[in-house]
Amino acid sequence: MRASRFLFATLRETPNDAEVISHQLMLRAGMIRKLASGLYTWLPMGVRVLNKVEAIIREEMDRVGSLQVLMPVTQPASLWEESGRFVQYGPELLRFKDRHSNDFVLGPTHEEVITDLARNELKSYKQLPANFYQVQTKFRDEIRPRFGVMRSREFVMKDAYSFHIDQESLQKTYDDMYAAYCKIFTRLGLNFRPVQADTGSIGGSGSHEFHVLASSGEDDIAFSTESDYAANVEMAEAVLVGERAAPTQELKVVDTPNQKTIAEVSNFLGTDAAQSVKALLVQGVAEEGKDAPVVALFLRGDHELNEIKAEKHPLIAAPLAFATEEQLAKLGLTAGFVGPQGLVEKGVIVIVDRAASVLSDFVAGANIAHKHATGVNWERDAQFTEVYDLRNVVEGDPSPDGKGTLQIKRGIEVGHIFQLGQKYSEALGCKVLGKDGKPTVVTMGCYGIGVTRVVASAIEQNFDEKGIIWPTSITPFEVAIVPMNAHKSPRTVEAAESLYAELQAAGCDVLLDDRDERPGVKFSDLEITGIPHRIVIGEKGLDAGTFEYKGRRDAESVNISKAELLAKIAK
Amino acid sequence: MRASRFLFATLRETPNDAEVISHQLMLRAGMIRKLASGLYTWLPMGVRVLNKVEAIIREEMDRVGSLQVLMPVTQPASLWEESGRFVQYGPELLRFKDRHSNDFVLGPTHEEVITDLARNELKSYKQLPANFYQVQTKFRDEIRPRFGVMRSREFVMKDAYSFHIDQESLQKTYDDMYAAYCKIFTRLGLNFRPVQADTGSIGGSGSHEFHVLASSGEDDIAFSTESDYAANVEMAEAVLVGERAAPTQELKVVDTPNQKTIAEVSNFLGTDAAQSVKALLVQGVAEEGKDAPVVALFLRGDHELNEIKAEKHPLIAAPLAFATEEQLAKLGLTAGFVGPQGLVEKGVIVIVDRAASVLSDFVAGANIAHKHATGVNWERDAQFTEVYDLRNVVEGDPSPDGKGTLQIKRGIEVGHIFQLGQKYSEALGCKVLGKDGKPTVVTMGCYGIGVTRVVASAIEQNFDEKGIIWPTSITPFEVAIVPMNAHKSPRTVEAAESLYAELQAAGCDVLLDDRDERPGVKFSDLEITGIPHRIVIGEKGLDAGTFEYKGRRDAESVNISKAELLAKIAK
Repeated sequence: MRASRFLFATLRETPNDAEVISHQLMLRAGMIRKLASGLYTWLPMGVRVLNKVEAIIREEMDRVGSLQVLMPVTQPASLWEESGRFVQYGPELLRFKDRHSNDFVLGPTHEEVITDLARNELKSYKQLPANFYQVQTKFRDEIRPRFGVMRSREFVMKDAYSFHIDQESLQKTYDDMYAAYCKIFTRLGLNFRPVQADTGSIGGSGSHEFHVLASSGEDDIAFSTESDYAANVEMAEAVLVGERAAPTQELKVVDTPNQKTIAEVSNFLGTDAAQSVKALLVQGVAEEGKDAPVVALFLRGDHELNEIKAEKHPLIAAPLAFATEEQLAKLGLTAGFVGPQGLVEKGVIVIVDRAASVLSDFVAGANIAHKHATGVNWERDAQFTEVYDLRNVVEGDPSPDGKGTLQIKRGIEVGHIFQLGQKYSEALGCKVLGKDGKPTVVTMGCYGIGVTRVVASAIEQNFDEKGIIWPTSITPFEVAIVPMNAHKSPRTVEAAESLYAELQAAGCDVLLDDRDERPGVKFSDLEITGIPHRIVIGEKGLDAGTFEYKGRRDAESVNISKAELLAKIAK
Repeated sequence: MRASRFLFATLRETPNDAEVISHQLMLRAGMIRKLASGLYTWLPMGVRVLNKVEAIIREEMDRVGSLQVLMPVTQPASLWEESGRFVQYGPELLRFKDRHSNDFVLGPTHEEVITDLARNELKSYKQLPANFYQVQTKFRDEIRPRFGVMRSREFVMKDAYSFHIDQESLQKTYDDMYAAYCKIFTRLGLNFRPVQADTGSIGGSGSHEFHVLASSGEDDIAFSTESDYAANVEMAEAVLVGERAAPTQELKVVDTPNQKTIAEVSNFLGTDAAQSVKALLVQGVAEEGKDAPVVALFLRGDHELNEIKAEKHPLIAAPLAFATEEQLAKLGLTAGFVGPQGLVEKGVIVIVDRAASVLSDFVAGANIAHKHATGVNWERDAQFTEVYDLRNVVEGDPSPDGKGTLQIKRGIEVGHIFQLGQKYSEALGCKVLGKDGKPTVVTMGCYGIGVTRVVASAIEQNFDEKGIIWPTSITPFEVAIVPMNAHKSPRTVEAAESLYAELQAAGCDVLLDDRDERPGVKFSDLEITGIPHRIVIGEKGLDAGTFEYKGRRDAESVNISKAELLAKIAK
């Protein structure tokens, strides 16, 4: 490509409304422009990257045997009524009426459409497993679109859906897709982690998110220092460490006037928060015809409750709800001064986090207003119903797989694979004839990659103060050639044109910067747009038989021979 | 691709609701499925064709220097208000509100969005010409979607837009795009004609439509038997042929009781319709403060008025409106019996079609109820204001370029190029600094191809009673290999696998039909899906060292050597 025929829409200033680096750099590098809130036009510089990302994804999807389809963006609401999501989905689902007043939605995802297709086209277990994908425009009416294409309203997704006669077949395809995703993100040049994830509102039984590690990420990812283990912080198991030591102190009740929080009490008593327990009183599950019991959760003072874990406990009501003032009053308890002593005896269900359960001689509320107890010990002073994993993991916790300890970093979710099970196939009646000749509800998986988001996340991971630094596989151009003083030096132009033709012929994606601009402008443009290799051609070099080369991450340029140059680019 | 891992969704029966052959065959070949009225899912068989069509279009767009962009499907209504089309466009423009009650549209076209982009990004004439394209999903809320993807509501378009400092530059890009379109449709294997077209509601000054000739087309295309000339029938010039002969008959008024139409009169008088003139009385353009004059249009009895041509005449009001009963009464005229005699004298503007102007001794109304005149002659008996091209061309008319005569065939519009001029740039204030340093409104062109429609039109042109016959460049698979009795003959399987691997390695798009189906089912599937080359591998052939080959258009298969086989496929 000749730069004179390309659109360089680079900006010198960082736009005010761009909060994250990828959004800033995509605007500054002339990759995208905002059309309206959460709606972006991709300029030629951006489309080149998008096309390369899409090509890699398509290649790997084809390789894993997924068949490409193309479903409409607009979907009849009736299918969403069948699945129950027309009401459930909330205001992110954009609903509209066509000219005949029929209800439609703009597809944020395509489970309904593909399940409808499958129930019509798949007749027998012999046609399974089946796996379909598309690369397509989606719409989600975000209440507050932000971070550019990272959380936009319209975006490009690769979404795939698989259909199976049983769980075993689903697991096999799921594993294949997991491997394909690893290959895709590796080829995209991203530092990523597949993490165990909560299946959330989409339902189903198994799920991994693929996160690109970057400080601007919206999720906290816990991963092992020594193994492949990685999980969303909410999903990571906090394993039991150590054993409870025997009591060495007597229980003493001490005055702690108006000291309610762990920080206040620890500070007041001069103790360590890790040597105390904090109480959370929540609603239990009511037996039929009875009032809901109160459940007291105890965690170490320095730990945080993981609500998702708590909600999974069969004795705890989901969604989590605090005990009422009335319930506390009935039990004679004052918030801020609750300890485990005597609770089980009053009919409270006491669930203790694993880490809290191995404390000895700890501080707890005294169940008397403005008093705490020190030297509290489980069993001697306080009974419990059960020990359970209730907390968020913290850095330094042992990895649940027994290998290494956990680190926590921010991640950007760029992919997600789900074992959907029969949620949609059941709702829409998607059945095939099984081996036994009987109609069998199919089992489904679904697999997404945020194509436009991948581009932004690659930038979040690869930039410096001068701009983007592209992974080679998705760079808009691999090499830029800059002829110096082109208007004065015909032999510079000739040498540049000749190298340009040669590299193009070798299949290289080359930009010849033949613009009538100062070298400083060109260099700055090439840096901000992140082109990996820059070759400057000038009279001096031509005399010496060398080219001035600079890799995008290099501090200085070097003068090298053509053979060396070609070797560098080939890498 | 192994057929066992592909989705063959072929149908034996022709679906009831499919009117045209492409719609029938796309359903029967398992290329598309209807999701809702005018909304189709493309199955794997269809997507393979769509991808090949798109790739050819993208290659030629890149080659002609158009830069790929990607604009949102959803567009803010405010831009359409700026251009005036939010009101003008009519109910095909799907309008909706987002969750914040802001008005949006689903884009049927992107002039507004690209002009908005251009007014922000293009600053100087030095950046021009600029040419952008995208391949993208569009939506048009058709009142009666039909013919499958030929007139669907959601469809894929390649739309391009160019920006220029002046008309000369636009003309150059327009010519380049014209050439690129010819190349694209040639590469797609289509029998097409670029035709001069009316610019219609989109406005502008020059326009060509690209039509695929097929009997199911919705437009009538007139084209020369001997040159490249082609035009929409509405646009084709009817040239003047011959000269008026001198009068040989006297004017006679004859009774024609209740004979009003040309057919009735000709039949009643035993004359030829081509030897009579018919009158159409319409509104003229009113001068300020005056009543609109009546304009009488005279055509040969066997010709049809072309309203578009009439509306372009400066003395005729557009849109065309008939003269009122009151106006006729004032002139003493009775509909059905109007002739040109004495009209000019009464203040009527008389415009005569070219073909009618060279008649002598013709039949016309007598301007007396239930009477006609025979032997009428221009100038001697009837004056006229002007001779003008008023009619639709008919087959056998001379081609306007002087080469050959016109044929008329049906065409399917698959592409359209427009010289938009300054319609959108003026409305949206898209200006750049001109060479003189002054802000200059840019001149625009736009260029569309209906990508999904191209697929259907290729089928309309290439099919037989067994199914589709694909042009090689867009076939879902180029070659199909069918091993016979695979479960009994390991060496057949081996030979099939070996040929499959060899052809794949040679870059051929091969389908290995390894399905557990009867040969009849396979052959029928391969025929309906239109795969150009079929190779059957069986024990007999292996013994003889031959392959059974059948081209999709061949009546019979032939047994040929491998060298002959490879030669056939290479073609």
